[in-house]
Amino acid sequence: MYDLLIIGGGAGGITAGIYASRQKLKTLIITKAYGGQMANKATEVCNYPGFPRIGGQELIQKFVDHLRAQEFVETKIGQVIKIKKEKDFFTVMTEEKEEISAKAVLLATGADPRALEVPGEKEFIGKGVSYCVTCDGPLFRNKNVAIAGGGNAGFEAAIFLTNYAKKIYILEYGDQVKADAQNQQEIKESKDVEVITNAEVKEIKGKMLVDSLVYLDLKQKKIKELDVQGVFIEIGSMPATSLVKDLVDFNERDEIKVDFETFQTKTPGLFAAGDVNVGKYKQIVTAAGEGCKAALAAYEYIKKQKK
Amino acid sequence: MYDLLIIGGGAGGITAGIYASRQKLKTLIITKAYGGQMANKATEVCNYPGFPRIGGQELIQKFVDHLRAQEFVETKIGQVIKIKKEKDFFTVMTEEKEEISAKAVLLATGADPRALEVPGEKEFIGKGVSYCVTCDGPLFRNKNVAIAGGGNAGFEAAIFLTNYAKKIYILEYGDQVKADAQNQQEIKESKDVEVITNAEVKEIKGKMLVDSLVYLDLKQKKIKELDVQGVFIEIGSMPATSLVKDLVDFNERDEIKVDFETFQTKTPGLFAAGDVNVGKYKQIVTAAGEGCKAALAAYEYIKKQKK
Repeated sequence: MYDLLIIGGGAGGITAGIYASRQKLKTLIITKAYGGQMANKATEVCNYPGFPRIGGQELIQKFVDHLRAQEFVETKIGQVIKIKKEKDFFTVMTEEKEEISAKAVLLATGADPRALEVPGEKEFIGKGVSYCVTCDGPLFRNKNVAIAGGGNAGFEAAIFLTNYAKKIYILEYGDQVKADAQNQQEIKESKDVEVITNAEVKEIKGKMLVDSLVYLDLKQKKIKELDVQGVFIEIGSMPATSLVKDLVDFNERDEIKVDFETFQTKTPGLFAAGDVNVGKYKQIVTAAGEGCKAALAAYEYIKKQKK
Repeated sequence: MYDLLIIGGGAGGITAGIYASRQKLKTLIITKAYGGQMANKATEVCNYPGFPRIGGQELIQKFVDHLRAQEFVETKIGQVIKIKKEKDFFTVMTEEKEEISAKAVLLATGADPRALEVPGEKEFIGKGVSYCVTCDGPLFRNKNVAIAGGGNAGFEAAIFLTNYAKKIYILEYGDQVKADAQNQQEIKESKDVEVITNAEVKEIKGKMLVDSLVYLDLKQKKIKELDVQGVFIEIGSMPATSLVKDLVDFNERDEIKVDFETFQTKTPGLFAAGDVNVGKYKQIVTAAGEGCKAALAAYEYIKKQKK
C-alpha cells in the first residue's frame, strides 16, 4: 500500500513526487513516459523561471534527475487503465494487469493533442502528418509545410520550422490568430511564414506521402489547395481523463473540476494537477506549482485519515 | 503609463515579470531587494524543480538573470508607500515621492518575519538576536544558540547551524513540532540539537551581547534559562499588506483574499501572488506558479480594458 500514487510524469507529477518524498510519503509515480507536454515542446523552453532558454528534453532530464535524488519515491513506466475507490483507499489497475493500492491518488496525466478529424489525417500520420514538431520538424528540410492552428502552439511550431522548412503556412480557423504578441512578432519578422486566417482545413491529400492540404477560405467561400509535404496539427489538446469518469466532475472540455487551493476533486483523496484540470493557465511552472500544492494537500489528507 | 506594475522581486514577482514581458506588457518591477524569502533561506533550496540542491542566493541570481533577459520589463529598486485606484488605472507613490501609473498592479510583496515580542528581543537585534540564519548563522561558530519556532523554518535553521554552532536548542510553544518528516529525521540524527516542546519564550537577556534565553516550561510550570549567545526567531511571517488596506479583503492573518485561478483581489486590476495572499501552501514553486497565472490574468484584464 502506497501513501500516494501519482499518475503522470510531466512537470506536475514530478514536482508532486519531489514534495511527497520530502514529506516521507511512500510514493509511486506511474507514467507512460517522462516530460508530458515538455517532450513535445516545439521551440526551446524560455519561460520556466531559472532557465532563460533550455531545450525541452534537457529540462525534462533536470526534473527527472531531481526526482531520482529523492528517497521515498519509486517510479514505474506503465499505463493505468482503471481507478477504483474502496472504503478509504484507491485501487488502480495497470495495462499489465497489476493492481496497486494507495491512500491517495494524484492525476497528473496532462493532455493529448486534439485531432482535426478530416479525411487524410489518420492515413498520413507518419507520412507527412504529425502532432509533434520537435520530433518530426527536421524531416521537412527545404519542404513546404502547413500548420493547423493559430495559437501559441502553432506559432511556436512555425518558429521552430523556420530552421528547416522552405515555406510555412499557418492556418487559423478564426478571423484572428490567438498566439501571444511576442510569437506574432517573431513570425512577422520571418519572410518564410504566411499566416492564413478564416481557413477551415478540409482534407489532407497525397499518394504515398502528403502532397497537399485543402482548405475552405471562409471569407471568399472558396476551396483552396496548398502544395505542402508536411502538416502539423496544433489545435490544442484533450485532457486524458477517461480513467476517472465516475469519480470526478468535468467541464465542457472534459477537464476535471478541482478546488484551486488543494487541487482535490470531488472524491476525497483524489487530486488533479496540471493540464488535466479546469485551470485556465497551463504552463510548465503552473503545473509544477499545482503539483506541489496537491502533494502537500495529499499529505494533510493522509495524516487526517490516520487519526 | 505602464501596463503592469509588479511590487516585489521574489519568485512570484520575477515570474510574473517574465510572463508579462512575453505578453509584451510594458512592465515595471519595483522591489526593495531581490529574492524575497529565498534570500533568507536557511539551508540550500532542495525543492525548486530542476535544481536538486542550490544555494538560495544562486537561485535568486538565476531568476534575476532570466528576468533581465526579457525585453519589456524595467526594474527599479525602491519602496512603494501608497497605492490608489483612479478610474481605470492605479497610481503608486514611492518613498522617493515618485508617482507611477499603471493599468494593473500585482502585489508580490511576500512576508516579513514575525517577532516574538518579548523583552530583550529588539535591544539585542544584531547583538545575538537574528531573523536570518543564512546571514548571521556563521557568526555563532562554537557557540550555543536557541531557535524559537518548531516548524520547517526552525528545523531548517537548526540543520544549517549544525555546521557552526556547538549546541542548538529548538523551542516550540506547542506540545508537538510542526516541521515536516524529513526535517525531523535530519534533526534526530544530529546529537548537537535538542528539541524542547511546551516552551514559551519569556525574555532574552545579556549585557552587551545575548547571554541567555528565559522560557516557561508550560508542562512543568517552571521558568528555565538556557545559556546561549544567539537567538534565531523562526516563528513565521507577516504579509506585507499595509499598502492596500482599502482595496482588498484580508483573512485573520492579514493575508490578502484572492480568486485562486486569476489571483485577482476584490479590486479589478489588482492582483496578489505568493506569500502575501491567503494561499495555504507557500513555496518557491507555488509563488512562481501564482506569479505566472496573475500575469496572464492581468494581460487578459488589460486587453479587455482596451476594448
